[in-house]
Amino acid sequence: MSKVVIVTGASRGIGRATTLQLLQHFNSNVIAVARSNQDLCDLKNHAENVLGMKGRLETVTGDITEEHIIEEVVKKCLEQWGRIDGIIANAGVLDPMGNFADINLQEWKRHFDVNFFSNISLIQKSIPYLRTSKGRIITISTGVAAFAHQSWSPYCTSKAALHMLTKCIAVEEPDIVSVSILPGVVDTTMQANIREQGLKAQMKQTDYQRYIDLYESKTLVHPDEPGRVLAALVVGGATQEMSGESYRYNDPKLAHLLDKK
Amino acid sequence: MSKVVIVTGASRGIGRATTLQLLQHFNSNVIAVARSNQDLCDLKNHAENVLGMKGRLETVTGDITEEHIIEEVVKKCLEQWGRIDGIIANAGVLDPMGNFADINLQEWKRHFDVNFFSNISLIQKSIPYLRTSKGRIITISTGVAAFAHQSWSPYCTSKAALHMLTKCIAVEEPDIVSVSILPGVVDTTMQANIREQGLKAQMKQTDYQRYIDLYESKTLVHPDEPGRVLAALVVGGATQEMSGESYRYNDPKLAHLLDKK
Repeated sequence: MSKVVIVTGASRGIGRATTLQLLQHFNSNVIAVARSNQDLCDLKNHAENVLGMKGRLETVTGDITEEHIIEEVVKKCLEQWGRIDGIIANAGVLDPMGNFADINLQEWKRHFDVNFFSNISLIQKSIPYLRTSKGRIITISTGVAAFAHQSWSPYCTSKAALHMLTKCIAVEEPDIVSVSILPGVVDTTMQANIREQGLKAQMKQTDYQRYIDLYESKTLVHPDEPGRVLAALVVGGATQEMSGESYRYNDPKLAHLLDKK
Repeated sequence: MSKVVIVTGASRGIGRATTLQLLQHFNSNVIAVARSNQDLCDLKNHAENVLGMKGRLETVTGDITEEHIIEEVVKKCLEQWGRIDGIIANAGVLDPMGNFADINLQEWKRHFDVNFFSNISLIQKSIPYLRTSKGRIITISTGVAAFAHQSWSPYCTSKAALHMLTKCIAVEEPDIVSVSILPGVVDTTMQANIREQGLKAQMKQTDYQRYIDLYESKTLVHPDEPGRVLAALVVGGATQEMSGESYRYNDPKLAHLLDKK
């Protein structure tokens, strides 16, 4: 039976790649959520007219920090397919960058709304259905959820909180598998932002240069790589004994998930 | 020269113990901040009339989630003593307890306001003075900032974020020492709350029983124990190479701080 998966931040990068992987290789139905209506239309058009997958992708345009958008996402899942099997909690921002002391409290809170509280809201509203389906929640983590990175304190702290939330859900929800994935340094607009704004935002020169070098040497990770792993995990690859754990997208423990594809 | 230290959550428990340690054994001036005016008056009365320390303790009654209270704290420090040498960021709450999904988003945000954002605000407003004094920021952490605890997801996640903030400050502020301390399971009103509300709030039976056993066997930590360590750290015991690290209050690496007292 086809799985029904919610993907946030689905218009670009890892979210888009995961959505396409779910449609093409994992026989899933997807609700793709993002702020950019144009990008979502392009994605839907691609799914229907290039991949020939009519009726398998629904979209919701909006900001997931708004409760009514979350409600619309859940309602659409249930109306269309009557179930929810998984969430890829991918939406997230790096900004604001800068010294923690120069970022005003409203910006701090806005950052947490996007990276942390919106995920609580989405998961809370989906959880009755995830319990029924014995579903899966996959959150996107990062190495800097554990290691402080100069000028990235909102991102480091919100991701540390999200990582811990993923573990708490694993403890509290025996019927749901909750896993964090570290997608590596992926070739997305977040990286372009780092290259453009990082020095101005007082990133450490050596940190900044590392991202420049990864870009110039063409060794940034392609979004399809974590996308394949995320798709494989959310449809069933994430098993009960993995709940509460975190993995790098290329952890050898996950390699078996991709052998079949 | 006497150090000037801000202690939040100073009316009870670890905050009160640390304040008294600073006054009695570390020759410091303290601004004690808490919501309970009565408790602060008792503390001030005790300091002045029992310990005979007139002029060494100032108090600010109010909620540190309110910006004007933070401003009053900093203003009072500067007016009274013209400097800030350290912060004991001790104020914090465990509530709300319960399954993460049953806690509404406003309660989640209120919890983060108290445990996380108020500390950002206090540290931001103090930081020009801490840079000048080459001061110290000591945050209160917990084992559950790293290990998920059933029914405590707001506390686990806010403390994970605060722990990471402490590390970020260490990276960004070379002139300030920023350290997390785990005070152990201390005999405070937080523990009384756990014993009274824990089962109703769906704590795991084995977790709950552990706290009951610590209480009944009289092996809860006395607030003076972490209080002594916190006081010793904030007046200078926390050295540059410790910045960004976290320690249990009884870590052997800290034992030398107490030898002199």
